[in-house]
Amino acid sequence: MYDVIIIGKGPAGAQAGIYLGRAGFKTLILYKDDGSLAKTDYIENYYGYNQPIEARKLLEEGVEQAKRFNVEFREDEVVMFLSSEDNQILVKGLKEEYKASYVIIAAGMTRKSLNVPGLKDYEGKGISYCVTCDGFFFRNRKVAIIGYTRFAEHELNDLLMFTKNAYLLTNGKDMEFDVSALKEVTVINKQINLIYGEDQVKGIEFKDGSKEGFEGIFIAYGTADASSFCVKSGIATDKGKILVDDSKMTNIDRIYAAGDCINSYMQVATAVSDGALAARSVIERLKADRKNAK
Amino acid sequence: MYDVIIIGKGPAGAQAGIYLGRAGFKTLILYKDDGSLAKTDYIENYYGYNQPIEARKLLEEGVEQAKRFNVEFREDEVVMFLSSEDNQILVKGLKEEYKASYVIIAAGMTRKSLNVPGLKDYEGKGISYCVTCDGFFFRNRKVAIIGYTRFAEHELNDLLMFTKNAYLLTNGKDMEFDVSALKEVTVINKQINLIYGEDQVKGIEFKDGSKEGFEGIFIAYGTADASSFCVKSGIATDKGKILVDDSKMTNIDRIYAAGDCINSYMQVATAVSDGALAARSVIERLKADRKNAK
Repeated sequence: MYDVIIIGKGPAGAQAGIYLGRAGFKTLILYKDDGSLAKTDYIENYYGYNQPIEARKLLEEGVEQAKRFNVEFREDEVVMFLSSEDNQILVKGLKEEYKASYVIIAAGMTRKSLNVPGLKDYEGKGISYCVTCDGFFFRNRKVAIIGYTRFAEHELNDLLMFTKNAYLLTNGKDMEFDVSALKEVTVINKQINLIYGEDQVKGIEFKDGSKEGFEGIFIAYGTADASSFCVKSGIATDKGKILVDDSKMTNIDRIYAAGDCINSYMQVATAVSDGALAARSVIERLKADRKNAK
Repeated sequence: MYDVIIIGKGPAGAQAGIYLGRAGFKTLILYKDDGSLAKTDYIENYYGYNQPIEARKLLEEGVEQAKRFNVEFREDEVVMFLSSEDNQILVKGLKEEYKASYVIIAAGMTRKSLNVPGLKDYEGKGISYCVTCDGFFFRNRKVAIIGYTRFAEHELNDLLMFTKNAYLLTNGKDMEFDVSALKEVTVINKQINLIYGEDQVKGIEFKDGSKEGFEGIFIAYGTADASSFCVKSGIATDKGKILVDDSKMTNIDRIYAAGDCINSYMQVATAVSDGALAARSVIERLKADRKNAK
């Protein structure tokens, strides 16, 4: 029985854990993988690091920091939540079941991605998932965005601040926005066969056998949607994001959410704030619970 | 002529500068001092630092980080803002005048403080201004809060999570809240003469000559109020905080605000998020301005 279970060990989850552990509450962080931060190479826009920090290193620092305040960590994939009697939340994982008075979902975003050979090999080696985060590294370079939705349009607009040598690759999909206003952009509407490179990404081979070289590739494919456990557990979402009130609480009492799963500006700087604010709300609730129990 | 002038070089201001500089906008940060962060000893609850970091070191890292992205820094105290013709903001400093298309106020809070001998000597050496930040360092110790307002009540409630050996020192002021519910707290209603100590704070001497030893002292005296330049410039505030909308814009077009001056949860983790979000809003505006100018 925990005071709080946090789902996700990224910036939002670990930051919430740091506040909760420091306030003396028994806290468990469940995680299924390293999340989207680990797919990034370096972070240089998070306040406090004069020199760019490896994303994996930042992730590890956060985990160790939470452990200093006695936060427990356990690898398990959460399947769903059930509100049980006595105002407790039952958290069903693939390995085990857990109980807590409060839950904070900081599970990040599962971005619908391409299933193309070579993609995973060059993540963080020229392939990125966030123009705001990494566009700066590719200024004045020849860069492709793979996508066809309004999410891709948004990323494309941001990319044009860094380079005029921009390509939109739709992978043969029908475009869901009007690209004609973006005169600088070259659109290629062929299906993608594979992504190739050496140490770094070099380019894309299409199914018709033709190739196009790129120095950077951004994936903005499909739409991001909230993890399926939300749907299963009756947690309200909108356009792939979990809906929360000002206190970061979802539509279900005692279940809060923070980070990329609620916030479309998927930055470390905003994730840590969400985590801190969700933790503050939960701490206030826990204090009130204890007062009432006296 | 700058794209953006930021007031304040703390976490909110520097984080905004990092985003703006990285996006290629000409940005100036004006600061009058090192702000409240520099009055803190160590930070251990900001995500990403496994080991506690000296607050001064964190502040310097943030400044250097912004400088890497060509953000300029200049020491000057801002007196007021004037919206001039051509949608520009005139920023009047004590030394000079500056012009920018947008302003982000990240000036922190001027906390009304005690004027008591010894106070300044022990800041960061047992004297702190934030229980959420530093209460953990004083768990189970004998600790005093100096204050009499509801702000002091809030801090006192937080302090009781860390120690039951808590004192409220009103410095002879009438209390503005009911302390009788807090049975564990000892109230001393005498006027304070001085704060004494050696390397660290040791205690307080009252005007009647009596003394009381403490291992830690928190200042929660009076209420915090927004800097006077806001009042002079017609920027709306409420209870000492600058009012902003969802985009972090104040009631005056092109003037935004971020950090402790808008946020009552005065944490580095929330300040950086405010800074990032204000910068994002300003970047969107600047992009639109450029599009319209074509």
